[in-house]
Amino acid sequence: MTKHVYFFGAEKTEGKKELKDILGGKGANLAEMSNLGVPVPPGFTITTETCAEFYEEGEQLSQEAMNEIEENLAKLETAMNAKLGDTENPLLLSVRSGAAVSMPGMMDTILNLGLNDETAQGLIKKSGNERFVWDSYRRLVQMFGGVVMGVEHAYFEKILDKIKETKGVNYDDELSVEDLKEIVKKYKDMIREKTENEFPNSAKEQLLLAIKAVFGSWNNERAITYRRLNDIKGLKGTAVNAQAMVFGNMGETSGTGVCFSRDPATGENVFYGEYLMNAQGEDVVAGIRTPKLISTLKEVMPNAYEELVDIYKKLELHYKDMQDMEFTIQEGRLFMLQTRTGKRTAQAAVRMAVEMVHENLIDKKTALLRIDPNQLDQLLHKQLDPVAKQKHNSLGKGLPASPGGAVGKIAFDNISAVEMKKAGDKVVLVRNDTSPEDLIGMDAAVGILTAKGGMTSHAAVVARGMGKCCVSGLGDAKVNEEERVLKLGGQTFKEGDYITLDGTSGDVYAGQIPTIDPELTGNFGELMLLADEFRKLGVRTNADTPRDAKQAIKFGAEGIGLCRTEHMFFEGERIKAVREMILAKDLEGRKKALAKIKPYQKEDFMALFKIMDGKPITIRLLDPPLHEFLPKEEADIKELSEELGVSIDVLKQKMDELHEVNPMLGHRGCRLAITYPEIAEMQVEAIFEAAKEVADSGIEVHPEVMVPLIGNVTELQNQKEIIISVAEKVLGPESKVKYLIGTMIEVPRAALTADEIAKEAEFFSFGTNDLTQMTLGFSRDDVGKFVPEYIKKGILEKDPFQVLDQTGVGMLVEMAVKKGRSVKENLKIGICGEHGGEPTSVEFCHRTGLNYVSCSPFRVPIAKLAAAQAALREK
Amino acid sequence: MTKHVYFFGAEKTEGKKELKDILGGKGANLAEMSNLGVPVPPGFTITTETCAEFYEEGEQLSQEAMNEIEENLAKLETAMNAKLGDTENPLLLSVRSGAAVSMPGMMDTILNLGLNDETAQGLIKKSGNERFVWDSYRRLVQMFGGVVMGVEHAYFEKILDKIKETKGVNYDDELSVEDLKEIVKKYKDMIREKTENEFPNSAKEQLLLAIKAVFGSWNNERAITYRRLNDIKGLKGTAVNAQAMVFGNMGETSGTGVCFSRDPATGENVFYGEYLMNAQGEDVVAGIRTPKLISTLKEVMPNAYEELVDIYKKLELHYKDMQDMEFTIQEGRLFMLQTRTGKRTAQAAVRMAVEMVHENLIDKKTALLRIDPNQLDQLLHKQLDPVAKQKHNSLGKGLPASPGGAVGKIAFDNISAVEMKKAGDKVVLVRNDTSPEDLIGMDAAVGILTAKGGMTSHAAVVARGMGKCCVSGLGDAKVNEEERVLKLGGQTFKEGDYITLDGTSGDVYAGQIPTIDPELTGNFGELMLLADEFRKLGVRTNADTPRDAKQAIKFGAEGIGLCRTEHMFFEGERIKAVREMILAKDLEGRKKALAKIKPYQKEDFMALFKIMDGKPITIRLLDPPLHEFLPKEEADIKELSEELGVSIDVLKQKMDELHEVNPMLGHRGCRLAITYPEIAEMQVEAIFEAAKEVADSGIEVHPEVMVPLIGNVTELQNQKEIIISVAEKVLGPESKVKYLIGTMIEVPRAALTADEIAKEAEFFSFGTNDLTQMTLGFSRDDVGKFVPEYIKKGILEKDPFQVLDQTGVGMLVEMAVKKGRSVKENLKIGICGEHGGEPTSVEFCHRTGLNYVSCSPFRVPIAKLAAAQAALREK
Repeated sequence: MTKHVYFFGAEKTEGKKELKDILGGKGANLAEMSNLGVPVPPGFTITTETCAEFYEEGEQLSQEAMNEIEENLAKLETAMNAKLGDTENPLLLSVRSGAAVSMPGMMDTILNLGLNDETAQGLIKKSGNERFVWDSYRRLVQMFGGVVMGVEHAYFEKILDKIKETKGVNYDDELSVEDLKEIVKKYKDMIREKTENEFPNSAKEQLLLAIKAVFGSWNNERAITYRRLNDIKGLKGTAVNAQAMVFGNMGETSGTGVCFSRDPATGENVFYGEYLMNAQGEDVVAGIRTPKLISTLKEVMPNAYEELVDIYKKLELHYKDMQDMEFTIQEGRLFMLQTRTGKRTAQAAVRMAVEMVHENLIDKKTALLRIDPNQLDQLLHKQLDPVAKQKHNSLGKGLPASPGGAVGKIAFDNISAVEMKKAGDKVVLVRNDTSPEDLIGMDAAVGILTAKGGMTSHAAVVARGMGKCCVSGLGDAKVNEEERVLKLGGQTFKEGDYITLDGTSGDVYAGQIPTIDPELTGNFGELMLLADEFRKLGVRTNADTPRDAKQAIKFGAEGIGLCRTEHMFFEGERIKAVREMILAKDLEGRKKALAKIKPYQKEDFMALFKIMDGKPITIRLLDPPLHEFLPKEEADIKELSEELGVSIDVLKQKMDELHEVNPMLGHRGCRLAITYPEIAEMQVEAIFEAAKEVADSGIEVHPEVMVPLIGNVTELQNQKEIIISVAEKVLGPESKVKYLIGTMIEVPRAALTADEIAKEAEFFSFGTNDLTQMTLGFSRDDVGKFVPEYIKKGILEKDPFQVLDQTGVGMLVEMAVKKGRSVKENLKIGICGEHGGEPTSVEFCHRTGLNYVSCSPFRVPIAKLAAAQAALREK
Repeated sequence: MTKHVYFFGAEKTEGKKELKDILGGKGANLAEMSNLGVPVPPGFTITTETCAEFYEEGEQLSQEAMNEIEENLAKLETAMNAKLGDTENPLLLSVRSGAAVSMPGMMDTILNLGLNDETAQGLIKKSGNERFVWDSYRRLVQMFGGVVMGVEHAYFEKILDKIKETKGVNYDDELSVEDLKEIVKKYKDMIREKTENEFPNSAKEQLLLAIKAVFGSWNNERAITYRRLNDIKGLKGTAVNAQAMVFGNMGETSGTGVCFSRDPATGENVFYGEYLMNAQGEDVVAGIRTPKLISTLKEVMPNAYEELVDIYKKLELHYKDMQDMEFTIQEGRLFMLQTRTGKRTAQAAVRMAVEMVHENLIDKKTALLRIDPNQLDQLLHKQLDPVAKQKHNSLGKGLPASPGGAVGKIAFDNISAVEMKKAGDKVVLVRNDTSPEDLIGMDAAVGILTAKGGMTSHAAVVARGMGKCCVSGLGDAKVNEEERVLKLGGQTFKEGDYITLDGTSGDVYAGQIPTIDPELTGNFGELMLLADEFRKLGVRTNADTPRDAKQAIKFGAEGIGLCRTEHMFFEGERIKAVREMILAKDLEGRKKALAKIKPYQKEDFMALFKIMDGKPITIRLLDPPLHEFLPKEEADIKELSEELGVSIDVLKQKMDELHEVNPMLGHRGCRLAITYPEIAEMQVEAIFEAAKEVADSGIEVHPEVMVPLIGNVTELQNQKEIIISVAEKVLGPESKVKYLIGTMIEVPRAALTADEIAKEAEFFSFGTNDLTQMTLGFSRDDVGKFVPEYIKKGILEKDPFQVLDQTGVGMLVEMAVKKGRSVKENLKIGICGEHGGEPTSVEFCHRTGLNYVSCSPFRVPIAKLAAAQAALREK
């Protein structure tokens, strides 16, 4: 016969933490603490299997379950020397749900169960505190009426408010005993009226109804939805914990508090916490009285304090992690009400993990697995001061496109941004969206806010690369770039007004909120070394400029996985030559302009080769459509017309010709280089001339030339011929420079025909941004209109531009890896989309057998940790 | 030992038509005719295997081959009673290449081989025609010098032109014997100078060099490229045919001609052809003398005529197809020089196929397989008069987007087009590109010309649907819509100027070229019945309007596979309500506007249900992004602003909000219906209210509701709920109306996860236009910039929007079919992209196990024939 109920207490505890499946998380921990000899108010746990049985029996408790509940209640009464429903010496209980995984949506807690008109009198006698008892009784009726009997919360509020109004008081604790009595009566009357049922006077009936209500809440709509959305499957049900009540508000030798075995903010190994004497748990939280630091308890109640210190040490040693504990002291006697793994800041998480390894409390693998890689982001960026932030209301919430906090004066265009920066101001660039033209303005700004675009819009991608705060796709923001006005949250901002962005949450605030600087302690470096010890995946960076490359090297990047050459086209004089090339009438004109661009490109490549000092650099040939390089604004067009001596009409005609309906699917990538081979020739010349010079100076170089947007192997053949012939010409016959030629896999057709493409490619690099766009048919610049709603409605779980769609896009990635390696067993394969720095996607890359991931410099540490975790989880 | 040479002639012919692999097509047919007793000038064929051997031996003829050539030459000399190189009675030969499949790019023909200064004298004596001999000699030196000795054609031309200039004559036939002698000398001198080799005087040397040159040309660059592009593999090489020369210009009892066993233009079963007496083959073609109708030969040379009639009948009966024959009469004696299957017009092809079945000459399967489905297109559209067309020069060539010819006055916008039509003019709408707004103008026009967009641009798709001529993507055309000017081919056209389009070739002409009407004879209908007998695939049509639906029924459509509801949104009053809906501030406003649209939709659906009379109709819910419905031009925006009483600023703000960077991948399809469920509700209500009313009137209805742009099964679940709940509400519990709910498979992710989607779908329909766009990353509106060049450079074989990319897109189709049917064995699957009417794509659909294809009304007959052929080929 299956056991339905497990007892816990100072003696005869039947459960343990390993029984979480049947006792739930809360029940298992209470049993575990009891086993450790930690004083826990005794009680019993009704198993999750009983919950399953409850549903099998048509929402009834079986006779066996009832019997075991009776038996355990008797045990509990003996242990507490009190009796449920006894008018002299009444036992009060708390009843709580608790499944194997934490799960909001179910019925939570009923306190003070066992009170009725008679037992209340007994408790008054026992405690000598009439007001406390009637307040407890009032709370029981409200909680029970609400969660067990289904009366809406508002009806209770209405009664309470009316009495407060009549009595002319503001706070509950100003109510007298008589008021509380009246409330209890009115609550009961109202419950009778609404439910046609009486509030059960019998303490035992209260208990049984509460147990059934907890089981019943397992299948309410909210709980079912929560399980579906979080993909929680295979649970038997919820357990029910019935536990003796203890009270911290029984006078000056009673108290209650919350404590942590280490400092959850800094991670320092010190005892940390707060308490209040003569108080209940909710008083600590409510903030009416200011709690005291836990260290002062030593003087107030030295014995209890010593015991608490022993307990916290014991619990941390036992659970091998920082514990977050609740305790109550009832008339000098310490009870632990809960222990659980404590939440912590990123900084604390890193420090604790590393120090616990030093202390031999945990091993390296545990340390690595314990840190959420996403959390590391907090350590790498300036953040808004969380305390100061609480005093401000968010004007609106966009997408958290690039983390960190930014405070500055609003600029609506590049010129203003640059000028304001020159004048010594911090600048936040506010745009409807950004294009490569805006790089100068973004560079001048400390943060970027856009009304349009998703998590991988231009603004988002570039800001992340620069490590700058960005909020994108804030649809509520009305940005009028011409009139230089931003309307948001009912307020109007002009150029020069202060604004604050929280790129970690997506919130935008008026005015200035102070920021705090990140601290990169030695623990962080140590954690990275640990990650390097276990990970299998290489971690490279996406970097286009020497600045990015240096940053990435600091963060431990092992090479450049994506150098986007077009970003080099925008700076200063270069863009002029690029535009001259685009507007040239013929091949000769184009070649002339390209000759002007080449020295710049070569210089950039030389700098990168030197910084990477022997590490590989994957250089992608020109990718965006040419129209991206032309000006958009009338004034800029006029300026260009004058510079080049070309009439505005001719310019506009050319721009019209280049206009595309869907530029994402247009004349770009290798398509450009096939129709204009001279562009590829110039770029490849610049790469190999740079490689040769740097190699000749004694620095090792490993260029990997990457052809973008291949869909058909014939395209790669075409480009490969150009690259090889230029390389041979530039490098000469006996060069030391070894190079690879490979391709992006970003067009679905390339993934589908990867076996054919692998015959010509020496490496693959998945461009999962574009692959996601095409596989899902989502323009990343336009998804702001429906993806947030898709997530809200549960149609999508995550934004597929943040977290790789493993089902759809992932299937293509797996196919391409398999097909590619079927032709070339050791084909080098990486990923250079934004997903390369997202932990679950990194794990996917590990499982799929990629050689490396490449991500923005600021995500390199995250990718390293995620890669190590993936390797550890696999074992 | 392998046989190298096969003899053919009146006696001892060794080959036959089945030996095409080793004799080549030409050699096999010459042997076959000889076997049939048809008089053929005797000769011999050196096998394709000898060609392979030639390459194995380092481009040398083996001794065995040389010996066999000698033996056969001796046989030929005996048969002809003349000797190669004999000064009294010289034998002249033609030498021709001939592989197993017709293959341009190789050396073609050398005539008159065997002539030199001495044999020329012998031939003069024999023929009594000195000029003829010297002219033949001159031609030999030129052909031999060019193709065997590699001298460029221009050098010969230069010599010839100079002599004509000196002599003051215009035509070759005005040159005297002396002139010809001088030419021969100068040719030889020039050859010596250029090649440092002598023109070989020895007739036998001429023969051997010619044979080697033919073999050598098998591997020249042109031939290799041709084989690669046409995927010709597995051939051994080319054969060489050496054949005795016969001459039709030996006086009034000689002649030459071309004839057909049936009329190649009409298909009528009559003897058809032309001849000239005292002439050579090229004279018939050159058009200097007007050839006579073959029937008159009966009087001129009754015996030869009778013999020719016997022969043509024998050959047609033997080859079981219409023969295209060349003959020469030398001094009263008839020789057949060639027979081959004759080319024919579409009309003739249909008539011959059907009549030959009636005559029991061929069976039904052969008849069906003999017609190129693409050819049928000619029968369904008005064409430019081919004779008149030859007198005009094309101004430029765009894409042949929709076949047929159109002549009309140019209009640059919808209003002008409609007005000009009202005034009784034929109109050609000329635009940079078209959008759904332009439907009115396209409807008023007889043809459409666009400067941008590909074969599946809006203009192309709609024009094909309407059966209207369209030339798209004519990049050379500069269209200034504002100034109402078209610049093309150096000419400038204003509104009202005449222009002629050839949608079958893509050519555009100035002025008016007469058109000819198609003839749909009874044979066409009979052919369709034959196709129906054998095909397995269903053939439906893409039709949005009653007019299209009626047209499609005439062509034999078995239902509607794609009814695009958005096309119904543009007409007249409807577009106003649609715009009101888009601009509404809230749900209530949208619902109010939708209520205005519903009666129109319902009315359209009722009309379609009635026309289809029990045949299924697949109705796709709204697909395009909302901004497509808003006006683009300032004037229209102003008008709309006045109509709706909304300020222009507000309008523009809304339009800005709706603007998308890549609309193809944006907020459209089911994404719209998920964010605005009220739109789907209105459409589904209209569908089922229409279905119910028509069903109640006693007409069977089979609505199939199709959800567009599904990428994730959750999207379909969301839409399905709406459809089912509306259907239940409208139809009531006991309705006779049975409906299906299914989805387009057009997003790659949908194909990849087709097993999940099939759980919720009752049918799939492949939207291969969008699937091609996303799988290849090709925006069909933008590919004009690179796809033509891709095809020219051999990177793509075909435009993937015309011919389904079976490798890439096809792989997704196959996956989706397999995955879908793994869940639902009998899942109904169709295709409704443009490819549904393209023969090779239809064959792919047949092989992949689809249930039906759906295409524009005018391609229904083509799809039916292609489907029948696919079924026949499979067996």
